[in-house]
Amino acid sequence: MAQRTAIPSGTRDFLPREMLRRNYIFDTIRTVFKQYGYVPIETPAMENLSTLLGKYGEEGDKLLYRILNSGNAFAGVDPSDLANNTLLSAKVCEKGLRYDLTVPFARFVVQHQQDIVFPFKRYQIQPVWRADRPQKGRYREFYQCDVDVIGSHSLLYEVELVQIVDAVFTQLNIPVTVKINNRKILSGIAEIMGAADRLTDITVAIDKIDKIGQEAVLNELLNKGITETAVQQLLPILTLSGANEEQLTRLSAILSASTTALQGIEELRTIFNYLEILKLGQKVELDLSLARGLNYYTGAIFEVKSNEISIGSICGGGRYDDLTGVFGLKNVSGVGISFGADRIYDVINALDRFPEAAMEHTKVLFLNLGQKESIKALECLKELRAIGISAEIYPEIAKMKKQMEYADKKAIPYVVIIGEEELNDNTLSFKDMRSGEQKKSDLKTLLADFSC
Amino acid sequence: MAQRTAIPSGTRDFLPREMLRRNYIFDTIRTVFKQYGYVPIETPAMENLSTLLGKYGEEGDKLLYRILNSGNAFAGVDPSDLANNTLLSAKVCEKGLRYDLTVPFARFVVQHQQDIVFPFKRYQIQPVWRADRPQKGRYREFYQCDVDVIGSHSLLYEVELVQIVDAVFTQLNIPVTVKINNRKILSGIAEIMGAADRLTDITVAIDKIDKIGQEAVLNELLNKGITETAVQQLLPILTLSGANEEQLTRLSAILSASTTALQGIEELRTIFNYLEILKLGQKVELDLSLARGLNYYTGAIFEVKSNEISIGSICGGGRYDDLTGVFGLKNVSGVGISFGADRIYDVINALDRFPEAAMEHTKVLFLNLGQKESIKALECLKELRAIGISAEIYPEIAKMKKQMEYADKKAIPYVVIIGEEELNDNTLSFKDMRSGEQKKSDLKTLLADFSC
Repeated sequence: MAQRTAIPSGTRDFLPREMLRRNYIFDTIRTVFKQYGYVPIETPAMENLSTLLGKYGEEGDKLLYRILNSGNAFAGVDPSDLANNTLLSAKVCEKGLRYDLTVPFARFVVQHQQDIVFPFKRYQIQPVWRADRPQKGRYREFYQCDVDVIGSHSLLYEVELVQIVDAVFTQLNIPVTVKINNRKILSGIAEIMGAADRLTDITVAIDKIDKIGQEAVLNELLNKGITETAVQQLLPILTLSGANEEQLTRLSAILSASTTALQGIEELRTIFNYLEILKLGQKVELDLSLARGLNYYTGAIFEVKSNEISIGSICGGGRYDDLTGVFGLKNVSGVGISFGADRIYDVINALDRFPEAAMEHTKVLFLNLGQKESIKALECLKELRAIGISAEIYPEIAKMKKQMEYADKKAIPYVVIIGEEELNDNTLSFKDMRSGEQKKSDLKTLLADFSC
Repeated sequence: MAQRTAIPSGTRDFLPREMLRRNYIFDTIRTVFKQYGYVPIETPAMENLSTLLGKYGEEGDKLLYRILNSGNAFAGVDPSDLANNTLLSAKVCEKGLRYDLTVPFARFVVQHQQDIVFPFKRYQIQPVWRADRPQKGRYREFYQCDVDVIGSHSLLYEVELVQIVDAVFTQLNIPVTVKINNRKILSGIAEIMGAADRLTDITVAIDKIDKIGQEAVLNELLNKGITETAVQQLLPILTLSGANEEQLTRLSAILSASTTALQGIEELRTIFNYLEILKLGQKVELDLSLARGLNYYTGAIFEVKSNEISIGSICGGGRYDDLTGVFGLKNVSGVGISFGADRIYDVINALDRFPEAAMEHTKVLFLNLGQKESIKALECLKELRAIGISAEIYPEIAKMKKQMEYADKKAIPYVVIIGEEELNDNTLSFKDMRSGEQKKSDLKTLLADFSC
């Protein structure tokens, strides 16, 4: 009996049509990374579990895919071990699949620090795996697309990353808004509120302002035990508006008692100044509600949203001051962003903005009308391919209708017919499948037409 | 305490230098695939174990990486299960990492048969995992690079695949020999020897002729119980030499009693005839000792070897008539080849033939000599990147020596200096790091220089 064909839930096959579209996104991003002097690295899919565990919180540990040890994995297992899933998993699995690209990157930097030139500008585009509950738009295997520079505190890199975001989305024809905040400002706010130890509660609440509104945020804070006075201090900050520079100036006044906040404000001022001069195509704005939940950010925080499609963040990142500390390399500052390829795909798809040229596969099909005719076709194909044109021949001597149907189904735009007549007068017939127009031509003309 | 940084044995990190070289290989291969009308697909890293098990023989099953089920994997395990590793593995693991691209491709074709246009010309470049004993040149994670066409018996696809091999290795500047055989001829030989049921023993022995010599092959066959008379019949076949066409003609005479063999000979004759007309750059030769061990081949068999470096096969494949049968789609013929990226890398490396242009990352470094100077530099950078030049700015206002060292270590070929003087007269100083030559220039000239 034939086996059922299915893939694990939460994973995907990519058909050619999807692959061409995905490659268009990755190629665009990669080209921009390259223009800014970033170089690629890759790390193995499997990491030692010792590298991964404890880096993503308790919840993250549960979402790691573990690989059963090879050979007799259960040789040393005692029946009493069966009661303790965590312990037993650790006994029979030494390796796991990577959960993100950040921890492997930190491990990589420490391991290869002697072979790297700092500041190290790298990008990495690889799949990651999470044993998450699959749902719409959330997969158990998905690509991350990270660009980071590590080994410098220079704010020019924050500027550079925003330029990269600007270039990528401009080229993808996706108008976006880049939202910027600074973790130091958030710390300063908590400080001023007299609740420095409640930073997480405060940022988690502020983060929701777009969804639940200002009043609900204030209520949540009160419910969490933040004092009424403290919450009142937050009000003027949450209601700030105006140009970036204007907001920063007023924020300096409100947070003047916190040197941390002032430092964060100064950092943003520098970044905004540079960006102003560089005249980006996309909108960049200060967003004090931006927190991104990730505790390892220490400076600038970025998030990018489509201006047209409401789908959440399609790109995000920030500055971190101690990514590699856990692996023994202290005081190395870095900044990076990650592009969400799946969401970007969904946005371009929803807006129907995949360019036709990027989707093209075979451009010319040569019909196969006989032995001699096919030899002539193969010779022409050789010349066409030599100038970079994607072209193929129908594999069998079949009815013309069947061959035309193949061109049609594959959406091949041009068909070349070499029959007895064309063979005799050393010509070819060239058909534009979209217009239906057909004309006599010759190889030289065909090559010239496709060269320009 | 800091954690030790290490990756699982048999896996690799790829540093930028290696990545650029690997990408050069993949990009070359991908470009050729595209010119011949092949389109990309991807399948998930994890497949259901039911898809993978039993497809690679008993040994292969042992080499599969199994993924521990999420949640409490051991909930249903009985202490008595501990005695049976195979049974227990099956209980706690439903998924495994793909072992090659062939079985996932077969599963893909059956699963998506309604969405595919046949003949389906696809390529797939993804990593695979095997719990093999790691050794020099053998890894537990490595990329496969497969190109197949499925859904046609046409020999034009055998011809096309040889053309692809020819184009790839010509572009990579690696002279190779493409060896071709046909499984039907091997079957015919066994038939003529009166040992049709011993095909595997015979092909395994013949396969070793290059390594152990003719006499040892004959002895091995005798030891395996093939009769003296049968072995004597093999002798004239093993000693065939001369041009491909000449060998085929003599082979027809020797194997005239086997219709299977004659069919195989006729197939090869057709393939060689086409290849003759198409005038390939690489050598193509009949090799009757070529068997490739894989039992699913039913027609042509290919193998490619470097003419300069002895490293075994760097590419291989063949025609199969029933790849998808196990998944319920019968009688679908296909033909494909697989490029061994790691070995190709080793060959190019050993021959020192990675082109300099493909290895380039940052082409121009702008020094950072002050706040105003950096702004001018950023403006110039914008223009350079707009014409596709990879360029960056040193991130801090540091001593010129330190900045030059960075350019040096990263092997950046050009440095642009914008100091006070250049700022005042709206020029820039341009230094060729290889020649050491430095000259005054301006942005317009710089852009013009890099445009051509």
